[in-house]
Amino acid sequence: MSSYSPIGPVVGIVGAGQLARMSQPPAIALGIELRVLANTPEESAARVIVDTRVGDYRDLDDLREFAKGCAAITFDHEHVPTEHIRALAEAGHAVHPGADALVHAQDKAVMRERLSAIGVPCPAWARVSSPEEATRFAEQHGWPMVLKSVRGGYDGRGVWVCRSAEDVAEAFATGVELLAEAFVPFERELAVLVARSPHGQGVSYPVVETVQQDGICVEVIAPAPGLDPEYSAQAQRIGLKIAHELGVTGLLAVELFDTPNGLVVNELAMRPHNSGHWTIEGSTTSQFEQHLRAVLDLPLGSPKMTAQVVVMANLLGGEEPDLFKRYEHVLAHDPGIKLHFYGKEVRPGRKIGHVTALGSNLDEVRARARHAAVYLTTGEYT
Amino acid sequence: MSSYSPIGPVVGIVGAGQLARMSQPPAIALGIELRVLANTPEESAARVIVDTRVGDYRDLDDLREFAKGCAAITFDHEHVPTEHIRALAEAGHAVHPGADALVHAQDKAVMRERLSAIGVPCPAWARVSSPEEATRFAEQHGWPMVLKSVRGGYDGRGVWVCRSAEDVAEAFATGVELLAEAFVPFERELAVLVARSPHGQGVSYPVVETVQQDGICVEVIAPAPGLDPEYSAQAQRIGLKIAHELGVTGLLAVELFDTPNGLVVNELAMRPHNSGHWTIEGSTTSQFEQHLRAVLDLPLGSPKMTAQVVVMANLLGGEEPDLFKRYEHVLAHDPGIKLHFYGKEVRPGRKIGHVTALGSNLDEVRARARHAAVYLTTGEYT
Repeated sequence: MSSYSPIGPVVGIVGAGQLARMSQPPAIALGIELRVLANTPEESAARVIVDTRVGDYRDLDDLREFAKGCAAITFDHEHVPTEHIRALAEAGHAVHPGADALVHAQDKAVMRERLSAIGVPCPAWARVSSPEEATRFAEQHGWPMVLKSVRGGYDGRGVWVCRSAEDVAEAFATGVELLAEAFVPFERELAVLVARSPHGQGVSYPVVETVQQDGICVEVIAPAPGLDPEYSAQAQRIGLKIAHELGVTGLLAVELFDTPNGLVVNELAMRPHNSGHWTIEGSTTSQFEQHLRAVLDLPLGSPKMTAQVVVMANLLGGEEPDLFKRYEHVLAHDPGIKLHFYGKEVRPGRKIGHVTALGSNLDEVRARARHAAVYLTTGEYT
Repeated sequence: MSSYSPIGPVVGIVGAGQLARMSQPPAIALGIELRVLANTPEESAARVIVDTRVGDYRDLDDLREFAKGCAAITFDHEHVPTEHIRALAEAGHAVHPGADALVHAQDKAVMRERLSAIGVPCPAWARVSSPEEATRFAEQHGWPMVLKSVRGGYDGRGVWVCRSAEDVAEAFATGVELLAEAFVPFERELAVLVARSPHGQGVSYPVVETVQQDGICVEVIAPAPGLDPEYSAQAQRIGLKIAHELGVTGLLAVELFDTPNGLVVNELAMRPHNSGHWTIEGSTTSQFEQHLRAVLDLPLGSPKMTAQVVVMANLLGGEEPDLFKRYEHVLAHDPGIKLHFYGKEVRPGRKIGHVTALGSNLDEVRARARHAAVYLTTGEYT
């Protein structure tokens, strides 16, 4: 790399998973040069980004070396220690989101405290340090109760829906720090994705419905079907308010429960998010382009939809290791379907890609996305 | 690269200019691993493709080494010697387009002979080997006359519009092999882009109007404004017929003159083409994705437009070397504009990028594309 001189600004992404990988297409278009900090040169983003550095995101020296020459530093995941992010900023690097914002996506107790303080609707919650304390919380708020690890959970991991003291004991047996939340009897799950730039511009994408199976998102429908416009605007206001109050720079995804009593915030993520993959083809500005624009403090792009209905379905690994041979049927069956593979080896249950369908009829678009996803992962026709 | 094992098929692109660069986003999505043969590691595509090999496309040994392990070989330009392409195919490599097709894009005399033989409308033409022969051609078909170098011309280079015997002498002074063509008094220039896969599937994009200045394309309007549907279908039939008759695999761009007496073929290119850059956002399947699908013999994608009107304007280098600082105005002025930079150093007149605007009103969309292109290249408001 010694002779390599960048022509555009360099954006460093810590982590080299599929989110960093999907940032490369808009970076190529905008002439932004991406650099990733990967665990191995075989990772998803490392396969498509020339300036890949291999290192440890938990090591401040590796991070300092990585940050040299970057116009902005951002993240593929939430696992970089908060104090390291602070150290990079103190050394003069532009880190987006900053430590004071990102901590809310890293620590669920900090997030609940802050959202409650600024009046954003949350489930009843409490820090709990013993099974007895958790059980008292359940007796007060009702069973089932949800226990969550304060740090490090994702895709349903680190979440226990407890129906009894035995379930509570099981969660505590893991030894991780826990938070108790009242179980929210929701009708469906929604998500709102907003972007905020350092100089304070904000943009919100349309509110989507996310469909989960076993705690993993399997389908996203944009816009959320049948959503009342006022209710939708309320969700967008919640997203923009959180971004503003927490000083988020870059993207913020807010997962919401849609309940008979209104919206309740479930989780936050401060990066491109699975609930926004539909924007690659479905919006004038994809979430990946938007995030790059935001972290470089460029004006944000239009979040306008390019079709009336967009459905994204995740591809979860099945038994077949070579999915490429299944392309033929899927592409011949539907010349409009868009496939996305993450360059990851297939393992059962692993998110290895997604498909997107666009159109005007919800049932039709949903059936197209599902057909492709089911065939690609199982070889079966639906 | 020794430990690197590809997960998807490897497509090798000979050449590392902006066409190879713009092939990387759809390759990333489809899980196709690109490899490029670059002249230097600083070239446009080499900046964004991990598996870059530096070598000489005129050297058969370099090409053979490059081709190892590729599921398909294709091209960023037309300059690979025809006999080398033949040698690669004989060694068992899948080369698309093949030598027998590509020679028509490499040798204008071979192209004219073949198109005339299959009844595709061409200007009157003749091989000419002396100024006297060329002058006789002009006296028969009228002045001005066009002389073209049989091989190697592009972007207006290798083309002489001759108004006198002196102009003819000037063209012959270059020493290159020449072809004479009757000057076509056209009303405008059109282009049709088609794709054909090895198993024979064909697809045509909507016919576009291309606007040239000094022999260089500056603007492309999709679809060509006010084009009669029957005339448009005729242009698409010409494109598909040429692709079929010449055995093209991959993309074929046909540049056409729109004349009072009908369509006349000007030039052919067998690769993604400047007249198709609008498809990146403007079509369900971009020309770059389509070319990858075709060379891998996958089913072709829908060429449907994503908006009623799409305008692409080329960015030609001006005096300012750092265009990035001009992004701010352009992106703030128009949140829907799409920018594409090729990662090339700015040199006056060099194609360094393009912009695309989408919408429903032709004048408005055209003005948006022009505003962005003029500001980015000159710093002036229009």
